[in-house]
Amino acid sequence: MTGHAHAGGPSPDFAQVEGEGCAVRIRAAVVTVSDKGHAGIREDASGPALRDLLEELGAEVAPIHVVPDEQDQIEALLIRLADGGDVDVVLTTGGTGLAPRDRTPEATLAVVDRLAPGFGEAMRAASLAITPRAMLSRATAGVRGRTLIINMPGSPKACRENFAVIAPCLEHAVETLVGGAYECATPDPGSDRG
Amino acid sequence: MTGHAHAGGPSPDFAQVEGEGCAVRIRAAVVTVSDKGHAGIREDASGPALRDLLEELGAEVAPIHVVPDEQDQIEALLIRLADGGDVDVVLTTGGTGLAPRDRTPEATLAVVDRLAPGFGEAMRAASLAITPRAMLSRATAGVRGRTLIINMPGSPKACRENFAVIAPCLEHAVETLVGGAYECATPDPGSDRG
Amino acid sequence: MTGHAHAGGPSPDFAQVEGEGCAVRIRAAVVTVSDKGHAGIREDASGPALRDLLEELGAEVAPIHVVPDEQDQIEALLIRLADGGDVDVVLTTGGTGLAPRDRTPEATLAVVDRLAPGFGEAMRAASLAITPRAMLSRATAGVRGRTLIINMPGSPKACRENFAVIAPCLEHAVETLVGGAYECATPDPGSDRG
Repeated sequence: MTGHAHAGGPSPDFAQVEGEGCAVRIRAAVVTVSDKGHAGIREDASGPALRDLLEELGAEVAPIHVVPDEQDQIEALLIRLADGGDVDVVLTTGGTGLAPRDRTPEATLAVVDRLAPGFGEAMRAASLAITPRAMLSRATAGVRGRTLIINMPGSPKACRENFAVIAPCLEHAVETLVGGAYECATPDPGSDRG
Repeated sequence: MTGHAHAGGPSPDFAQVEGEGCAVRIRAAVVTVSDKGHAGIREDASGPALRDLLEELGAEVAPIHVVPDEQDQIEALLIRLADGGDVDVVLTTGGTGLAPRDRTPEATLAVVDRLAPGFGEAMRAASLAITPRAMLSRATAGVRGRTLIINMPGSPKACRENFAVIAPCLEHAVETLVGGAYECATPDPGSDRG
Repeated sequence: MTGHAHAGGPSPDFAQVEGEGCAVRIRAAVVTVSDKGHAGIREDASGPALRDLLEELGAEVAPIHVVPDEQDQIEALLIRLADGGDVDVVLTTGGTGLAPRDRTPEATLAVVDRLAPGFGEAMRAASLAITPRAMLSRATAGVRGRTLIINMPGSPKACRENFAVIAPCLEHAVETLVGGAYECATPDPGSDRG
């Protein structure tokens, strides 16, 4: 996970460096939030599921982090990942429900400097077609610096279903975040950079 | 509204105590927010509508509370209901629109410690199929301690329409909130407790 | 943009003054948020698009404001527009994406006293049917005093698509905000004023 051509911002020869048009290679991290996973008494299946999905998308994925459902520990890890400059996207899994110790959204909201409500909305809307329990997901998303943090569900099945929702826009999200989107891609409808 | 088997957390003989599998009996409260209702110059039709719907779902419902559109009074009542330990779900009705005195979402946001954005999203999405005015609803939801607070619309008709949206997941929400869901229910997609 | 019959609250002869039943004439402002637009190195096409759409709806639209993507400048302008008493609805365009300088939602959240999440949700849901990139929009909305502030996308095409989503409820929103809706209109489903 060392420096990429896009890490420092748009480069004049961005297309050449990255190979295929303006496609960036997403540098991703996966954070499993689970008391039992952290204690080693339950195998983490969701983290590997997300890692595999990210790799299928062409992303470079750091080793999975497993933390307990402790808000301060989740926050500290998210801050370290975002501020290290090596990660474009952090996907968390676990801790987004109503169980008393579920605090992943709160940790996320505490560390991001800009909200990105569309991810949670889109995932819940898609999951509602499968089960009304999708309503109970408190998943949120936001940006800290140049890193996008997205809360994913806690089960491997729901991770796969929800990843399919967000995958089509992840690459463009990263292109935009690192400041290169206006150089080579069609404009984001939410941005005025044309 | 005295103690339930689930009030203190999951119990080893939870299923026996509750009767039908892991079904909990929801302990609910209804709060009507209305200046005119509180002043007695307008009959409260939404509160009784919600009470009846909750009872049809099998919930135990406390007498309806009627408060004026005063944010501090709404907050104080929500705090009292949540912190008393006798209520799993509070449904409010009224005060979620754009009228100058509508402050129910603000009172709710001020007292919850965890947000649950999926309820408002799902209700607005369903209501948008009926009327574009659904967009104007500022309804929110969240958790204070072990109590789920959900803002419902202000008219009996809209209450009925929106209750139909949230009803299918209320029981599981309460099971999860009180900490028993992982003992007996299928896992919540947002939680890692399997 | 001088005083309207509805500016000071509901009037007994509201219907007569306004002409057609309870229809209000919306007093609107458009704010283009764009570094390049403000520097004069890029023509602002989204602002005029929104102005034209508002005028087609019958609104009275003030001259377009163009500000750079500086959160404090956006905030100052929104405050001035809302607190001046002459504007019922402010539509912003630009600055809602993930680009590093996109800060329009943050400026909006900082100045509103009540959130109106339904607008962003409805626009994103409608845009998701067109492109998954709609998920990246961070558009928000809220109320400051009696003024509704809504973030619109940054491109003229997306502005037109999204304006079609919110247009059907703008007039009722303004009627409700200025306190006159309960006098003459069918009740808002989120309000208890019948």
